[in-house]
Amino acid sequence: MPIKPDILKVDTPKTSRLFRVEQVDLRFSNGEERRFERLASSGRGAVMVVAIDHNQQLVLIREYATGFDDYVLTFPKGLSDPGESPIEAANRELQEEAGYAARQLHVIREMSAVPNYMGHSLTLVIATDLYEHRLEGDEPEPLEVVHYPLQNADTLAMRPEFHEGRAIAALFLTQQWVKSNY
Amino acid sequence: MPIKPDILKVDTPKTSRLFRVEQVDLRFSNGEERRFERLASSGRGAVMVVAIDHNQQLVLIREYATGFDDYVLTFPKGLSDPGESPIEAANRELQEEAGYAARQLHVIREMSAVPNYMGHSLTLVIATDLYEHRLEGDEPEPLEVVHYPLQNADTLAMRPEFHEGRAIAALFLTQQWVKSNY
Repeated sequence: MPIKPDILKVDTPKTSRLFRVEQVDLRFSNGEERRFERLASSGRGAVMVVAIDHNQQLVLIREYATGFDDYVLTFPKGLSDPGESPIEAANRELQEEAGYAARQLHVIREMSAVPNYMGHSLTLVIATDLYEHRLEGDEPEPLEVVHYPLQNADTLAMRPEFHEGRAIAALFLTQQWVKSNY
Repeated sequence: MPIKPDILKVDTPKTSRLFRVEQVDLRFSNGEERRFERLASSGRGAVMVVAIDHNQQLVLIREYATGFDDYVLTFPKGLSDPGESPIEAANRELQEEAGYAARQLHVIREMSAVPNYMGHSLTLVIATDLYEHRLEGDEPEPLEVVHYPLQNADTLAMRPEFHEGRAIAALFLTQQWVKSNY
């Protein structure tokens, strides 16, 4: 397991670089009024990429997650750059985070994270026909790459460190896609 | 389909009731320093409940999601009340949101939403042996309850309005649990 970073300081910033809270006043069709809060979306798309190598193994990463102050096992993912399609963003993130490029990329579906509070959504992309190719990313440290047999997906889905809901969904959607397409 | 509420106003509040942004200064084990932001967790647990009725149908709800300004198809879920176990919270949310209580409840696993930015996690609970019983909740309008055959889970997993990652994960985890336990 990688060594966790030290937390030097935790502060409450006056203005946030990432998060903008919106207060929304609503009137439901039955006349009921409510004030809810949500986080404004950046407007930039995001992708999660499930890559399957030539040995029918999934390409996972072990990455430090600030929200949990711990390493999590998940799939490569990230924001799309301006003008980038989901396919292009997926292939770039796969090269930056895991050191693979793909000759075949398949858009599966959009997934949200917390639709009651955030408009954010990401595109699940399955990558096949891989070859080794690394691109320099903006990660603070190299990510550990973990290969996991696709046929053991049911076990992976219950592993405590593989806890991100969208990654668990992506795993099963990939299993479903493989059964009918691969 | 229900009629969407009118958005009366969208504001940026000076202080937020729900969200508290934390700025975290980190030093990784390779000496690299980064400043990341995350949302502080409320500390309260949350549950998502997948209920299976006597006809082997899943009990879904159609709920207005402020982040998307749209109705989404998902499973009943909510925050635990202070002192409540995940089992108790699941059974209460099921009664409030869908009008069913369960005689059997099974804790499956914890799932996170966006671990890089939020420490929030929810407990997936499967509910079986249902009977009709409603509790009053704090919903602004009655939620539409949708029954969906468990055997068509693969189709549900690809429906555009069923887009919440943790709900898609919950669906497949339920399918897996049913195969080996039910």
